[in-house]
Amino acid sequence: MSIEATKLNGTLNGHTNGHTNSHKNGSQPFHEIAGGITAPKGFTAAGLYCGIRKVKKDIALIKSDVPANVAAVFTLNKTLAAPVIVDKELLQKGNGTCTAIVVNSGNANACTGEQGMKDAWTMVKETAQALNIPETEVIISSTGVIGQYLPMENVVSGIRQLPSQVSSDGSNDAAQAIMTTDTYSKELAVEFEIGGKPVRIGGIAKGSGMIAPNMATMLAFLTTDATIDRPLLQKTFAKLIDESFNRISVDGDMSTNDMATLQANGLAGAPKIEEGTKEFTVFSQALEYVLVKLAKMIARDGEGATKLVEIVVRGAKTEQEAVQAARSVANSNLVKTAIHGADANWGRILAAVGYSGIDFDPEKVTLFFNELPILEQNYGIVIDEAKAKEVFLKENITITINLNQGSESAKFWTCDLSKEYVHINASYRS
Amino acid sequence: MSIEATKLNGTLNGHTNGHTNSHKNGSQPFHEIAGGITAPKGFTAAGLYCGIRKVKKDIALIKSDVPANVAAVFTLNKTLAAPVIVDKELLQKGNGTCTAIVVNSGNANACTGEQGMKDAWTMVKETAQALNIPETEVIISSTGVIGQYLPMENVVSGIRQLPSQVSSDGSNDAAQAIMTTDTYSKELAVEFEIGGKPVRIGGIAKGSGMIAPNMATMLAFLTTDATIDRPLLQKTFAKLIDESFNRISVDGDMSTNDMATLQANGLAGAPKIEEGTKEFTVFSQALEYVLVKLAKMIARDGEGATKLVEIVVRGAKTEQEAVQAARSVANSNLVKTAIHGADANWGRILAAVGYSGIDFDPEKVTLFFNELPILEQNYGIVIDEAKAKEVFLKENITITINLNQGSESAKFWTCDLSKEYVHINASYRS
Repeated sequence: MSIEATKLNGTLNGHTNGHTNSHKNGSQPFHEIAGGITAPKGFTAAGLYCGIRKVKKDIALIKSDVPANVAAVFTLNKTLAAPVIVDKELLQKGNGTCTAIVVNSGNANACTGEQGMKDAWTMVKETAQALNIPETEVIISSTGVIGQYLPMENVVSGIRQLPSQVSSDGSNDAAQAIMTTDTYSKELAVEFEIGGKPVRIGGIAKGSGMIAPNMATMLAFLTTDATIDRPLLQKTFAKLIDESFNRISVDGDMSTNDMATLQANGLAGAPKIEEGTKEFTVFSQALEYVLVKLAKMIARDGEGATKLVEIVVRGAKTEQEAVQAARSVANSNLVKTAIHGADANWGRILAAVGYSGIDFDPEKVTLFFNELPILEQNYGIVIDEAKAKEVFLKENITITINLNQGSESAKFWTCDLSKEYVHINASYRS
Repeated sequence: MSIEATKLNGTLNGHTNGHTNSHKNGSQPFHEIAGGITAPKGFTAAGLYCGIRKVKKDIALIKSDVPANVAAVFTLNKTLAAPVIVDKELLQKGNGTCTAIVVNSGNANACTGEQGMKDAWTMVKETAQALNIPETEVIISSTGVIGQYLPMENVVSGIRQLPSQVSSDGSNDAAQAIMTTDTYSKELAVEFEIGGKPVRIGGIAKGSGMIAPNMATMLAFLTTDATIDRPLLQKTFAKLIDESFNRISVDGDMSTNDMATLQANGLAGAPKIEEGTKEFTVFSQALEYVLVKLAKMIARDGEGATKLVEIVVRGAKTEQEAVQAARSVANSNLVKTAIHGADANWGRILAAVGYSGIDFDPEKVTLFFNELPILEQNYGIVIDEAKAKEVFLKENITITINLNQGSESAKFWTCDLSKEYVHINASYRS
C-alpha cells in the first residue's frame, strides 16, 4: 500500500491546536473523532509538571487497562539516547506487550553515559512499581537537551504522581507534556468498523523542529483498541511509519531519541484483524491517515516554519527513487528559503533532483506548483511568474515533479526555512 | 597523499580581498606570490562588463600563449548546464589541450534546452574566431540565474572585446568578472622550483554560496607553467579537487554548473614532471595548497557566513568514513546555527556523526573545539562552557572529532548559517 492509495483529501489545518473535528472523510472507511490517544477503549493518559523544564508540563503517562500488543520503531542514529537503548532491551526481554509508556520532555538523556543508563532504568523501575506491573510492560522516552543528566528526584516524583492522574480525557495533557519547541500540541483519533463493532486509533506526536534549548526529537505514541497480533502490527506500523514520519524533514537532522510506538489492546471487542482481509485494509488506511496527518502537523510546525510544503514526485522508475528525489528537494536549503520568500525559483528544484543521486533525464521533467504548470518537457518554460508567486504566498504548497520515466511515485513533506529557524537554533541552551 | 600530509600551517585570512603576500610557508617547498592566474608564464587574462549583469564585470577570458595541457573536473549534478555539456564534448573531440577559457557571470545558461545549447556553441565559435584558434582549444563556463536565456548580443560583444584587453596583470579583473554573490574576489599563486627553474601555479575561484538572483556555482580556474603530461595532470588534479573543493559545503546544494580546470602550458621551461619523483611531490603539494586555500576562501565567503569552520575527523577506519562523518557535521543546519550563535552545543555534533551512516561506537568519541577538550571517551563531559563559548565567538573554528577506532582522517570546511543566508536566498531573483 502506498501513500497515494489513501487519496488523502482535505488540506491540513496547519494551526490546529490538536482538537479534532468529528467529520467523515469522503469515501474513506473511517472518520475523525475527538479524544486523541484516549479515544480507543481502555486507554488513559496524564501529563503534569514535575520540574524538569522551567514551567510547562514535562512528564506524561499513557496507560492501557490490559497489556497491549506493541509495535515500535526507533531512530537509526548511531548515537542512541539511553531510553532508546533501554526500550530495545525491554522489548527483547518481554513478550511483545506494553501496558505503560512514560515520556519526559526537557531533557533527552542522550550522550549521558553510565549515569544516563542508570537513570533510564530507574524510570522503568519506578513506573513498574507505581503501576504494579512487570518492568517489561514499560516503555520510556525522553526528549530535550542532550548531554545533561536528568534531575532524577523530580522525575521520580513525577512518575509517582502520574498513576493517580490518568483519565480517559487525558490525551491533550499528555500531548502537551511531550512538547518541546512545538507551538501547538498534536493529537488525532479516528474511528472505523471491524465486524460491525467500532474500533479506534488515536495518536499524539511532538515535533521534529530542532529544539531550543537543544535537540530535535520526533516522538509519536499511538493507541488502538483493535485486536491484532503483534507481528502483523509491527510489520504494518513499520511500513506506514516509513511512508509518513520517515517522509518529513524540517532540517535534515536526525535525532538520537526519535521513536514511535503503537499499542493495540483489543478492548473494542472486535474480531481479530488478519493480513490480506478487507478489515486489514480498513485498519491500515485508518492508521496511515493518522500517521500522515500527525507527520504533516510536525512538518508544518517545524521551527520557524510558516508554510507546509508537499513534494510529490511522479513518473519515477521505482518508489525508492521517487522518495530519494523528493527528500533531496525537501532538504534543500535553497528550495526552502525560496519558498519562504515566495520566490518561485524553480531551477533550484531541478538542481536538487539533479544531485539526489537518481538516474533521470532532465529534459523529460515537468513541474507544477499546486495546479500551475511551471515547466514542460524539453525545458519548455511556461511559468507565469505572477501566478507562481501567488502560489508560493499560500500556506499550503504542493510541488509536483514528474520525471516521466516510470510509474512510481512518492510524497514528502517539509516546511520553509526562515530567519526564525536560525534565531531559534542559534540561541544558547536555556 | 592526504590533506594531512601538507601540514597546512597559518590560518586563512578570511577577509583577504584576493591580494596575496609573498611569504615563505615554513618548511613548505613553495611560497605565495602575487599575480593569481597570470603569475605563471605565458598566461594573460581580462575581465570586463558586457551587459549580462546590471553593473559589475560579467565576462572573463583566460588565455595561454600556447596550447596548454588541460585537466578538468565537472559537477556530478544530473541537471547539467549547457556549457558543461559543450565542454565535455570539446574535451572529448580535442587533443587534451586548451588555449582559452571564457567565463560569464549573471546567467548560468542552465535548464535552457536547445536554445541554451545553441548559445553555448555560439560562445565557443565566437571565442575561437576572436582568437583565431580551433574550437577544441576553447572552454566556456557560465554562472548565475538558471532557466533564463543568455543575452547573446551582449555576450558576443563581450567575447569580441576581450582579446584586445588581456594582459599579464589581468588576473584580478577576471576574478572579479566571475563573482556572483561573493563578497570578495578569490585569487592566489605560488612559486616553487623544478630542476632549478621557478615554476608557478595560479588560480581564481568563485563562491559556492548559493546565489541571489539564483544559482550557486563553484568555479575555479587554475594555470601553471609547469611541464606535465595531460594524463598525470588530470589524475592529480581530480584527486586534489576531491580533497579540497569537494570538501567544502555552504548549504549542501550542488550546482548544475560547478567546474574546475587546470591549464599547464610548460612555458617555465622546467623539466617535465613525472609521477613518483620528488618534483611531482613538490608540484602536488603546491597545487593542493592553492586548491585548499581557494576552497577555504569559498567556505568562509558562503552566503551570510561570519565564520570559517574546519571539521577534522580522526581515528576513522577509512578515509572515506572520515569524510562521510565530517560532511554530515558540515552540512548540519543545527551545528551551523549553533556556531553562528556561539552556542557550544556539542550534542548536535555527536548526533550528526550518528546519522552520517558510518559505523562507530559513540562511547569512544572525543571532541575538541580548537585546543579545548569538550568530551572524553565514555561520555566524559569535560566542557568548560565559558571557554567553549569563547572559541565559538572566534572567526576561525576547528572542530576535531576523534572516533578512536582507526588511523584515518579527513578535513572538511564549512561556514555558519545566519539569518543573512535566509535573507539572501529568500529574496526574489533580480
